[in-house]
This record gives sequence, structure tokens and C-alpha cells, in this order.
Amino acid sequence: MSLQEHDEQLQSFKQYIRKLKAYHEAIGLIYWDMRTGAPRKGLESRAEAVGELSAESFRMSVSEQMSNYLNYLTQPEVMEKLDAVERRMVQECKRDYDFSKKIPADKYQAYVVLTSQAEAAWEDAKGKNDWAGFAPYLEKIVATNKEFIELWGYERNPYDTLLDMYEPGMTVAKLDEVFGALREKVVPLLAAVSQSPNQPERGFLDQPFGKEQQRAFSMFILNELGFNFEAGRLDETVHPFATGLNPGDVRITTRFLPDDVASALFSTIHECGHAMYEQNISDTLVGTNLCTGTSMGIHESQSRFWENVVGRSEQFWKQYYPKLQETFPEQLGNVDVDSFYRAINHSEPSLIRTESDELTYNLHIMIRYELEKALYNGQIEVADLPDAWNTKYKEYLGVVADNYSEGILQDVHWSGGMFGYFPSYALGNMYAAQMLYACILKELPNFYELIEAGNLAPIKELLTKHVYQYGKQLTPNDIIQQMTGEELNPEYLVRYLTEKYTRLYDLQTV
Amino acid sequence: MSLQEHDEQLQSFKQYIRKLKAYHEAIGLIYWDMRTGAPRKGLESRAEAVGELSAESFRMSVSEQMSNYLNYLTQPEVMEKLDAVERRMVQECKRDYDFSKKIPADKYQAYVVLTSQAEAAWEDAKGKNDWAGFAPYLEKIVATNKEFIELWGYERNPYDTLLDMYEPGMTVAKLDEVFGALREKVVPLLAAVSQSPNQPERGFLDQPFGKEQQRAFSMFILNELGFNFEAGRLDETVHPFATGLNPGDVRITTRFLPDDVASALFSTIHECGHAMYEQNISDTLVGTNLCTGTSMGIHESQSRFWENVVGRSEQFWKQYYPKLQETFPEQLGNVDVDSFYRAINHSEPSLIRTESDELTYNLHIMIRYELEKALYNGQIEVADLPDAWNTKYKEYLGVVADNYSEGILQDVHWSGGMFGYFPSYALGNMYAAQMLYACILKELPNFYELIEAGNLAPIKELLTKHVYQYGKQLTPNDIIQQMTGEELNPEYLVRYLTEKYTRLYDLQTV
Repeated sequence: MSLQEHDEQLQSFKQYIRKLKAYHEAIGLIYWDMRTGAPRKGLESRAEAVGELSAESFRMSVSEQMSNYLNYLTQPEVMEKLDAVERRMVQECKRDYDFSKKIPADKYQAYVVLTSQAEAAWEDAKGKNDWAGFAPYLEKIVATNKEFIELWGYERNPYDTLLDMYEPGMTVAKLDEVFGALREKVVPLLAAVSQSPNQPERGFLDQPFGKEQQRAFSMFILNELGFNFEAGRLDETVHPFATGLNPGDVRITTRFLPDDVASALFSTIHECGHAMYEQNISDTLVGTNLCTGTSMGIHESQSRFWENVVGRSEQFWKQYYPKLQETFPEQLGNVDVDSFYRAINHSEPSLIRTESDELTYNLHIMIRYELEKALYNGQIEVADLPDAWNTKYKEYLGVVADNYSEGILQDVHWSGGMFGYFPSYALGNMYAAQMLYACILKELPNFYELIEAGNLAPIKELLTKHVYQYGKQLTPNDIIQQMTGEELNPEYLVRYLTEKYTRLYDLQTV
Repeated sequence: MSLQEHDEQLQSFKQYIRKLKAYHEAIGLIYWDMRTGAPRKGLESRAEAVGELSAESFRMSVSEQMSNYLNYLTQPEVMEKLDAVERRMVQECKRDYDFSKKIPADKYQAYVVLTSQAEAAWEDAKGKNDWAGFAPYLEKIVATNKEFIELWGYERNPYDTLLDMYEPGMTVAKLDEVFGALREKVVPLLAAVSQSPNQPERGFLDQPFGKEQQRAFSMFILNELGFNFEAGRLDETVHPFATGLNPGDVRITTRFLPDDVASALFSTIHECGHAMYEQNISDTLVGTNLCTGTSMGIHESQSRFWENVVGRSEQFWKQYYPKLQETFPEQLGNVDVDSFYRAINHSEPSLIRTESDELTYNLHIMIRYELEKALYNGQIEVADLPDAWNTKYKEYLGVVADNYSEGILQDVHWSGGMFGYFPSYALGNMYAAQMLYACILKELPNFYELIEAGNLAPIKELLTKHVYQYGKQLTPNDIIQQMTGEELNPEYLVRYLTEKYTRLYDLQTV
């Protein structure tokens, strides 16, 4: 192939990817709209529209044309001619292509239908505490995923294939190691916290808080954090999320509870972390398949970094608490900043993952990880899940649900077939702590002073430099290696939690 | 072809149309979003996305596959086997196909680029009062349209082809007749109104009116009119519009001016008229190409019927003015309902179409119609337009702009290539008055009592029965014939305006 033919082929490939991205952008907008303000009566037709666009984008991603591009571009002598971004574009594309192509289209279609029925069945079953009503769906989903794993293939552990979908490169071997190390330290720390006589007062967080004032304060905080309103917006929804349609249009959502000031506040900061990642991806990646966060774990590291490391720090509230008091003088006028800080960091074993605190959260995740791993390694069956769930909860957290709804039916993920996803949340916590100690505190030794001064821009800039700008151009492992000089290491999170909770609960050094 | 093969072919065609509709729905949502709340920085990427979807939907509408469907379905012996809806689906599809297919793709593409550049050039030229800066674009647009007309073909008048795009079946012969009859009566009526000593006071309409109160009142009125909020929503924009994504999702927009209570109010009622048309199309048409209003003129008849015939009636304000006073006690507490009614119906020759009243509005339209007709019949050139504009304004309205911006550069339409569109506005007024006298007042003799009682549902139901439910299943002429027993007749609008303005200005009977 002549140089000119090569260029034409490469440009044509890039144009094809731009077109695929255009579909993704339209689909993303439709989902955002469905989950924010779309009129109820139009949803059925909208679902059909999004189905058509999704089908077309799937066809494009496994088309003959895509196959031709990849056959040409993945040849070693051609790869050599590509620049770094182009090479990663091809790699990512090949990864997606192989993933989609290995599953027969009719099998995949049936799976999509199954999971969408299963989500409805789960919602119903959860409402009625009816495990038996949901179990048959889950059995089919697990069986199908096992078939898919055989088609996709795996090297060491079948569950690795599912982990790799959300966190490229992640394995059971690695997770067993890091979760083991984490658990060993967190369990005694949690015991010490539970036994501490210094339990915080929390009642004042649950009072009537006006929605408009909550919204105004959320908008204020978003501005302070560095969310760019020229490239994003905030809306309301039932289950908060962030969606990056392109770096110039990243939308976050929140939910204002009338009797809880902390819920919307920290959910907004959390989504803002996701959003700032997407808003600050380099312009050079726009229109490529690299223009999004590199993995669920790295994405979650950013939402949790801003929510917890920054947003639940003492220094953050030294700066912003007076403004919160001003917004809610009746509710918080007589609560001092230290009481507020301790209340928002209160830790206690509980049943519900999404309402748990920084210390117990990772244990909720480990339980789900252990169960998924056992399922996909044939050590347990779907029918064993409720008992296995309760046994693990008793062992890890010392609590047991007395119903299915707060137990095995708690999360939506499995009904949608999202096995391998849960670990991302705990990975996010570990990545965030590692970034903090092994990079941020070194490059910004005055990190906490900056927070206390309300000068958050240098923090965002540093994260843009090391993480955000790259999008998917770097793998998760590249990011963490390049930023901290080592692989994922759970000791940083152990250190973070130990320091924070020792001070908070005035513990003897553990 | 066997019956089974016929059924398969027909079902496949319907499925293809559903898919096309899915694209239109996604495109419609993107435009709505771009014009309401989309973040500024994301617009460039969004424009690319909508371009890709539009290109794909265009490709589908002129594809080999579409051609095959139409070749089969338009055979007389096949058409006979179709039901009424299917037959209209095929006819409409064939109409669109012929329209798109007759223009070479590269020429059409160039024209799309030209008009998008011209819209930007027009905006710039209007701001700078720079006719010379815009004229070259307009010359190219007109020249291209003339080429297209040759490709599309025409029977009697080349301009008929453009009229037919927006109002199927409309011709120069018909418009000359109805506009002539209208003008003959409206000009002396307007002269009498201008000379009347009974001019209304209007100053109180232009005071500071709080935006939130304006919004609350608009929402209240929308509910009263029968806008279904489960199948629609109200947002803010710069240039108000309505968009029907599907009958379950029809969105309207408005603009709240801080110093003008009438602007948002009547613009909201106007868009509500468009929206109620789209919301009440029969479920049986969902997913077909007939699931929208049948023409620009019939659509406009509904927006104007609700805005003017209902919303600017004495009875409407007898019912709703107390609520408006309650909303704005400081501004309107001392203004009685009759003064308010007269103020919102004040008539006076003016330069700007969009700010004109019911009486003068049609004259603004006729001026544009005369100029377009002359252009496309080679009687004038683009260079002659500014003078021709002023001459017509002097003749029809007695006013002349002293700059281009308020004269020939006033409207956006021509920059977008929308020749043949303006008459729809006046057609809307004529259709609305004809519907009122020749149908509504007969079937609902207590029409004005219903309005005064705030019981508007029977009016919406009647219009649903005669107009809304049909979507494009009936042609504009079918609708008006079936509803009123005759073709478009301008005498009804003459009667409506004469009765209304004679009473308003206490004129001697004209």
C-alpha cells in the first residue's frame, strides 16, 4: 500500500470512528433526557428510537468495513507508522470488535432482552421481598454470562474476563491480594471505631432543608470545585449520575431530599468528580474512541477523591461551613463546624451499600466480589446466594438483613448483567488514596492549606495533568504507574482510613 | 406476488418507516436540546452528531430499498389492497422520495452548506444594517432554488412548487384570489381603525413583570387550555417554538421578557396550539410518516386559533383576568378587564411582522408573498428587493423602514432558503376563522360561553375530532372541506376581523 493509500485508509477509519461517536453522543443525550425531564407518555416511542440508534451503532462496530480497517491497521508494520493516539484508537477498537464479534448476534440480542426484563423483574421482586420471583432471571443471566466467557476465552480465571470489561487488566489474583490486605486492616479499625466512646451526634443532618436552598448551595459548591457550567449542567433525577456527551457537554444530576442535607450535597460532589474528568479530556481526543475515562475504577477514583478526600475533609468545611450555615441558619446555626465534620464522617456497620461510609463501603464491595467470584468459578449456584450473602455480611460487617430486599436484592447491577462491576468502586477508593499520598501531597505539599483557603484550582490542574487529559489514551495501570511510580497498592487506602478515623474517633493508635 | 409475500413486503416497509421516524425523533430531541439548555461548549460536537443522523436518515429516504418498496407499493393493483392509512403512508413517502431524489446529492449538499453560511451572514448583516453583505448569499439561494424548481418541475407557475412544499396543493392562482379578497377588505378596515378616536391605553403592559410569576401564570394557562404535561413540557428559549417528538412528547418553549407581560403569555398560548395538535394525533398513526400536522398552514391555524380567537377574546379574559391581576397586583390591580382586553388587541401599522397585530399581520405576509412570487417569475431580481419591499410597505401599510435591518433584512426565513413558507401564516389565520364560523360555532353554539366559563375542553375535543386526530392522514384541503363543507374561503377571516375591530374601536359599520 502506498503512503497515500495508507493515509486515505487511516483517515477513512478516523471518519468512521467519528461517526460512531456521533451515534454514542445522540444515544447518551436520549438517556440523559429519559432520566431527567422527558414526559412519561413519550418514553415508549423514545425507547424504540434509542433501540434503533443502538442497533445501528452496534452494526457499525462489527461491520465488514470495521473488520477491513482492523485487518489493515493491526498489522505490525502498519501499527509502527501510527502515532501514539492512533495506535491506542486501533487497540481500543480491536478490543471492542473482538468483544462484540465473538458473541453470535442472536444470542446477544436475546441477552439484551433478558436483562431488560430482568431489571423490571428485579424492581418488582425488591418491592415485594420476593427472591423466588427474581432468581430464575438471575440464573439465566449467570448461565448466559458463563457461555459468553467461554466464547470470549480467559487465561487463569473465568471471572477475570468480566473484571477486564470494566477495569482493563484487572484479575482475580490481583483483587484477592489487594482486597485481602485491605480487609485485614479495615476490620479491626472498624471494630475500634464501633467501640469508641466518642460517637458523633448526627440528628441535625436530618431536618427539613429547603430544596431551593439546597440547590443554590450545590451550585455554589460546583463552581468552587471547578465544574465548568459552560461545558455542563446540573439537573434532578431519581438515581444521580454523570454523563459525558463530549468534553464540552458533561451533565450531572442529583436528588434533593427534603429531610437530609448531606445526601444531595455529597452526591453532587461525587458526580462533579466524574464530570471534571470528562470535561478536561484533551481536545486532541475529541471525536476519537479515546475521549472518555479510561476505566470504571479510575473514573470512580475521581468521584471519590472529590467527594471523600476533598469534600469530607476538615479543611473543606472550615472554608465552606460558614456559607452552609448562612444558607440554613435555623438548622445549622447552633452546630459548630467540628460537629458537622464528625457527623458527615460517622462510621457504622450497616446493611445498605449506597448509604455506607468510607470505612465500611469497601467491605460491602468485597462481599459482592467474593460472591461473584464464587459464582463464576462454580463454587456456588444462584440458589445459594441469599445464604452466602448473609454469611458474608455477618462475617465482614456483623450485620444480617432480615429480608431479601435489603439483602440479596439490594442492588440493581446483577439484574442488568453487570458482573465484574462492583470491584470498580473499591478500586476507586484505593486509586484515590494512592494518588493522594504518592503524588498529590508530594507535588502540592500545601494540599490541605489550599482546600482550607478554598483554592481548589491547583488540585484540578494537577489531576488534569496526570489523569484527565489522557482520556483512554493511557490504560488504568499506565495512569497509576506514571502518576505514583507503582502498581495499585492498597496500603495507601489503609493509611488514609487509619489516619482519618483514628483522629475522628480519638482512637488509640491501631 | 402471493398474499404472504405482499404482507411481508408491507410489514417490512412499515418497519423501515418506523426506523426513519426513530431517527427523526432523535434529531428532534437534539435540536430541542440545542435550543434550550445544551451547554455552549458542546454545540460543535453536537452539530456533527446531528449532521451524521440527518445524513443517515436522508440516505434511508432515497435508498435503493426505499425505491424498491415504492415501486412495488405504488402499483395501482397493490394500492387497492392497502387500507386508507397505508395508502396515505405510501403517497407521502413517494412525495418525499421524489422531492429528494430529483436533486443530485452533491447539489443538495452544497445547498445545505450555502444556507447554513447564509444564516450566519444574515445575522451579521442584520446587526450591521448591511444589505450588500447579505445580497450575494441570497442571489445564490434564489438561483439554486430556481434550478431545483426546474428539476422538480411545475405545472402553471414555478412558485407553485415552493408553495406546495409547505402547503400541499396550494397555488399562486389560489393565493392571488384569497389574498386579493382579503386585502380589499382589510385595508379600509385598518384605515378606519387608525382614524378612530377610541385608541386604547397600552402603557401598563410594559412594566416590570417578575419572571417567576410570568412562568407560574403561563403554566396555569397551559393547564387550562388542555396542554397535557404528562405528554409535554415547557422550557425557555430565545425564539419560541413547539416540537412534537411523538404524541406523548410534545415540547413547547417561551421567552419571558422582564418588561412585557403580553409577549410570553401569547407566545405560550400560540405554541400550546401547535402542541395540542401534535399531542392529540391518533395512536394508530404513531410510528408512521403521518404522525405530525398535515401542513404548515393547518398547523398555524391551530396556534392562531388558540392564541387569537380564544386567547385574545373578551370572554377569555373575563374568566382569567382576575387571576392575572392576582399574580400582578401592583402592575394590574388598577387596570380593568376591558382596558386590558383593548390593550392586547391594539392595532396599528408597523414595520415588524412578528410584533404586529391580528389586523395588520396578514398584510405583512402578503408583501412577502408578492415579492417571492415576483422573484420566482423573473419579474424582479434580488437586487431589486429593498426598493420593492419599501414600495409594498408604503402601499399596504403606509410605513417605510429607514434601514435595511427593519426592512428587507427583517426575517430569517430567506437566509435558510424558506421561500414559499410565509403564506402559511396568513393561511393559518384564514383557516382558523373558517373553522370558527363554518364549524365550531355551529357545533358549539355556546362557544363563547364556554370560554367565559373557563370550560375549554369541549373546544379541544371538537378540534381533535375534526383536525388533530388525523395527523397527515388527511390533506389540508381534505381537512377544511370535511370540516366546513367548502374550500379555503377568505371571507370568514374578513368577517372575523371586521366584527372584532368594529366593536373594539367602536367604528361605524364599514
